[in-house]
This record gives sequence, structure tokens and C-alpha cells, in this order.
Amino acid sequence: MKLASLKGGRDGRLVVVSNDLAWFTPADAIAPTLQAALDDWANLEGDLRGLAESLEHGAVPRERFHEHDAASPLPRAYQWADGSAYVNHVALVRQARGAEMPETFWTDPLMYQGGSDGFLGPRDPIGLADEAWGLDMEGEIAVITGDVPLGAGRDEALAAIRLVLLCNDVSLRNLIPGELAKNFGFFQSKPASAFSPVAVTPDALAGWRDGKLHGALEVELNGQPLGCADAGVDMTFDFGTLVAHAAKTRALGAGTIIGSGTVSNRSQDGGAGKKVTDGGVGYSCLAELRTIETLAGGAPKTPFLRPGDVVRIEMRDARRHSLFGAIEQEVAAV
Amino acid sequence: MKLASLKGGRDGRLVVVSNDLAWFTPADAIAPTLQAALDDWANLEGDLRGLAESLEHGAVPRERFHEHDAASPLPRAYQWADGSAYVNHVALVRQARGAEMPETFWTDPLMYQGGSDGFLGPRDPIGLADEAWGLDMEGEIAVITGDVPLGAGRDEALAAIRLVLLCNDVSLRNLIPGELAKNFGFFQSKPASAFSPVAVTPDALAGWRDGKLHGALEVELNGQPLGCADAGVDMTFDFGTLVAHAAKTRALGAGTIIGSGTVSNRSQDGGAGKKVTDGGVGYSCLAELRTIETLAGGAPKTPFLRPGDVVRIEMRDARRHSLFGAIEQEVAAV
Repeated sequence: MKLASLKGGRDGRLVVVSNDLAWFTPADAIAPTLQAALDDWANLEGDLRGLAESLEHGAVPRERFHEHDAASPLPRAYQWADGSAYVNHVALVRQARGAEMPETFWTDPLMYQGGSDGFLGPRDPIGLADEAWGLDMEGEIAVITGDVPLGAGRDEALAAIRLVLLCNDVSLRNLIPGELAKNFGFFQSKPASAFSPVAVTPDALAGWRDGKLHGALEVELNGQPLGCADAGVDMTFDFGTLVAHAAKTRALGAGTIIGSGTVSNRSQDGGAGKKVTDGGVGYSCLAELRTIETLAGGAPKTPFLRPGDVVRIEMRDARRHSLFGAIEQEVAAV
Repeated sequence: MKLASLKGGRDGRLVVVSNDLAWFTPADAIAPTLQAALDDWANLEGDLRGLAESLEHGAVPRERFHEHDAASPLPRAYQWADGSAYVNHVALVRQARGAEMPETFWTDPLMYQGGSDGFLGPRDPIGLADEAWGLDMEGEIAVITGDVPLGAGRDEALAAIRLVLLCNDVSLRNLIPGELAKNFGFFQSKPASAFSPVAVTPDALAGWRDGKLHGALEVELNGQPLGCADAGVDMTFDFGTLVAHAAKTRALGAGTIIGSGTVSNRSQDGGAGKKVTDGGVGYSCLAELRTIETLAGGAPKTPFLRPGDVVRIEMRDARRHSLFGAIEQEVAAV
């Protein structure tokens, strides 16, 4: 089943989208918003699935689904916590700045609490007030959970995952060192993120297994491929483990979004990944590319994002059909 | 005007409370929940204030207000970000562990993103799964904002403050060092916080001026006074500055809660505050008391909270009338 929130009001309007993303039918008769559906999932899931089936059969009124009419599936959420499950990415970035990475990073997930009071829509511009902040994208996979009890184990956590979606975790790289030095984590360095137009139940994703979403995450910058790393590869912590980590000392409310962190693959020889133009799978953020450039030549060559730049993040199935629709955002000076 | 959310459902039921906290009248006819009221404040504030006035005059049906029937004013919120505006507190805690405090802490606010998907009610127990985690309370002042545009200055931020309330920012002290070492900020070390039964508009608080709430924050442990520091004293950053800090790189959605951090006063000679039993204003958390004990005797003497301990946080006016109702929570093993 595929769900989306059409723009309108603070929380959008819940619709069911056809598997091929061509059509939608309103779901407000079942739940006005996705949050309302998640709040009462046990009672409403069956009705939503029934509606999705009717949509596939053409048995209900339908309209054309346009991705640019969609807000993020949860236009605002009660929780957004982002892991850093592709430890390869962390190791690389640290290597470039000469910082050691603790061994525990391979066994104890990194996770930060993100702002969730307002997400950008998948086609909304990314407003940038100051180029010196070092704007970057981060291509990620994310999941939306139902209620998760305090202390849930990995299997219980995995079973609480309701939907899967893509994320652009917008980052202001040059604000990060100063904030991390203050020891309170990210805040100003993590402005509003954006999510894919459509969120999909795990059972409708052929690539979903063992708590990971297998498949290439296509990341483009200005129409050129930047990365196509496989989200199921080199993911040190699966989503069940990430959700359980978040629930270790507190229950998680329905509608909690948990992110994977920047998708990142090692190269086949186990070292740093190669650029797409060099036959590699490339990178899901500019920071990683700049790290590779620094390791190779002593300094980064690729600038951070500037007004006019366009970022696109998408995942397709074996037949090249888009699974979640595309995040496509232009950077705009504000 | 004083507002509360009676327990019921995920978001409670909005009521207007009389100034003396004795009575309430339902406000659902105006807005079903506090979040709904904040979402459309410009249109609804007048009606809510009219209802509050009618309640004071006994002109509408009213019922007895019982604090233990109240949820936190926002039982869940889209954003909870906690500052550390009483820099004295930070300096002390660092001093005890021999860590230097950067000078910039006096000019650049500390703030972390907290979990907001589910708050404890003001009389709910604090569930503790493991005593070794080092459970502590933190007595704080907090504000709830309306929409705040990206890049808002201090005055604009101050004008966006809708409500003031008290907070117990529950902390797991022994999980903090490990999390801070990972550089991603607090996560597992900050389980669900609790807020006072009632939230109050700034105009109804005699102690509200210059973006600070003046008055003693009374913190008790097991019926004994632990602290009565003045929240208007030694607050390095006022709430206007804290909200503007949060809005530097992103807009804040209506219903954002911003906390002051642990209220803390220097002693009159400018040094570490004295215990209440030694004639001082004491402390709003155990960590600070333990710091004082460590500085005095080489090691802390007061243990962290254990099952059965009761924490109470309250603020009163000049006539000893409670302003927000009391947060009163017993620690319970889970």
C-alpha cells in the first residue's frame, strides 16, 4: 500500500496512491491525515488496504497523482530521529579530518534527535540564507513507526514499522563543527528535512528484508548522477535495531520517523567508494565526495550547494519504476 | 489566561482554568486541543480570552479543576528544544569534572533537540528501568511559541511566545557521558519530560518581564526543599534570545516548546550556590548538588533518584498561590 499527503493545511490530506504512482483516491473518509491513520492504525489499516485494492481495480473514483502536489507524507511529525547506520560514511568523514573513530561506532548506533515541527515538501525549494553555511543534501531511507513500547527488542521494533520512505536530510556542514564542539548535538546545522512524495508499507517493497531496504538510492545533482549506493549494503544497523535503540529509555509515539543516515557503500576492494564517473556507486551527499577529494588531493574540489542547484533523490524497482516518487529540490536564496 | 489539557486521547481536551486554579470550563467548542488552538491562535485567542473572563465571573458552567486530571498542556508536541540559559549551572557541572568551559558559552546559547512525541503528565510516575542510569530531575521554565519565521530577531521571537509553563526535564545522568562522547548529543539520556498542569499567557504573570520569568522555582525532593532559585536571576539568555537561536536556520512551527535549562543561581558572593539548609537557594537538580558536594568533599554524597522518591516542582506568587499547579512525580521501577 502506498500513502501520500496532498498539500493543504498544516497536516495535508491523506490519499491512497496506486502502485504505479499514476493515480490517487482520497482517504479522508477513513482518516483525514496520515498522523490520524497512524494514531489508530490497528482499526484503520484494513480499510486503507481495502481502498488501495479498490484503487488498483479501478473500482473507486480516482484522479491523476502529481508528485508536486504532495507534501511530505507527515508534513510535521512528533518525532524525527536520524541514525547513522552506514558506519562507512562516518569512518570516511572522520578519516578526512584526521579524527579517530571509536570502535564502539560499529556496535552502538549513532542517533540524533532532529527537528520535526515542519518538513519541506518533496518538491519544495531548500531556502538558504547564507552560502557560507555549507549546504549539503543527505540521501537516506527512513521508516515511520506505530507505538513502540519502552525497552522494545529488535523484533518488536521491526514489527512496529508501518511505512518506508526516502529522505533528504538537509545539512549545513559548516555549522556542524561549532555545534558538535558545544556537545549538545546538531541544532542549527540541521534545518528542515524533506521526504519522498509517497510512503510505502514494507510488504509492498520487494527489496525490504531483514529490516533493510535493498536497492540503489539514486542521487542526482543538477541532472548528473552523484550516487547510486545500495541501501541494503553496508548498513551496519538495520531499522529494527535503530528503532530499538531509540526506544531503550522511552516509548516512541505513533508517527515517529527514524532515519538510516546517509546511505554509503564501500568500494569493492573495501576502501573508499569511487565516483559514478569512475565506475563506482558514488555518494549520497557532497560531504563524502569532498572527503574522497581531500583524501586524494589534499583538499575538496566540489563546492557545497548554491542557489539554483537541483538535488534529486529516488529509488526504482527492477523495471525502473519509481517506488516512492522523487524528492527534487532546488536551492533558493532567502 | 490559564489553559490546561485534561487527560483523554493522545492530545487531551482543552480547558480554560481560573486564575486561582480552582475551576475549569471546557474549551472544546473553540478548539478541541491546545495544539489546535495554537495552530489558529490569531483567530481563536479572543474567544479563549472571552471564555476565561466568563469563567472568572462565574458566567459559564464550571467544574472543580484537579491537577491530577491534567496531562501536560501539550501531551505531545511537534518540537521540544531545551536551552541551557543558566550558564552558572553548566560552569559548575564542568568544574566538578575538571572540564574547561569555553568562553563562548556566555554569548552563544546551548540548545539541544529533545524528544516530543509523548510527555509525562504532571502527576505521572517517572518509570525507571535501571537505577544505574542515574535518574535526575531538572526544574525549568519553558515557553510555547506560535509560528516563528526563519531568521526572526529577539523581539519578533519574544512576541511569538504564547504561553509559559514549568518543566521537569528528566535526565539519565550516567548515560550522558557516553552519549556526548559520540558527538550526536543527548538521546537515550533524555527520556520523556513532564510539564506543569497549567500553561499561562505571559500577560497573566506578574513576574514576566524582559523575556524572563522572575520568581522562585520551588523544587522539593521527598517533601524537603532542594531549591528555590529565582528563575529571573542569572539567566544569561532570555527566552527571546533562545527562541531566536532556535529559528536561526529554520522556521519554528506553532506549538514549539523551548526550555530554559536547569534554573540555577550563583551564591551572593558570586560562587557556587549554597544548600537551602545552609541558607542558600539550593539547586533545581541533583547533579548540581552532587557537584557542590564533589567540590567540597571530593565525591558526591546525594544519590540519584530511586523508586519511591517524589519530586515536586512549583512556582507561587507573592501570596503563595500556585501559578502553574505543581509537577509532582514519584519514581517507579518498570
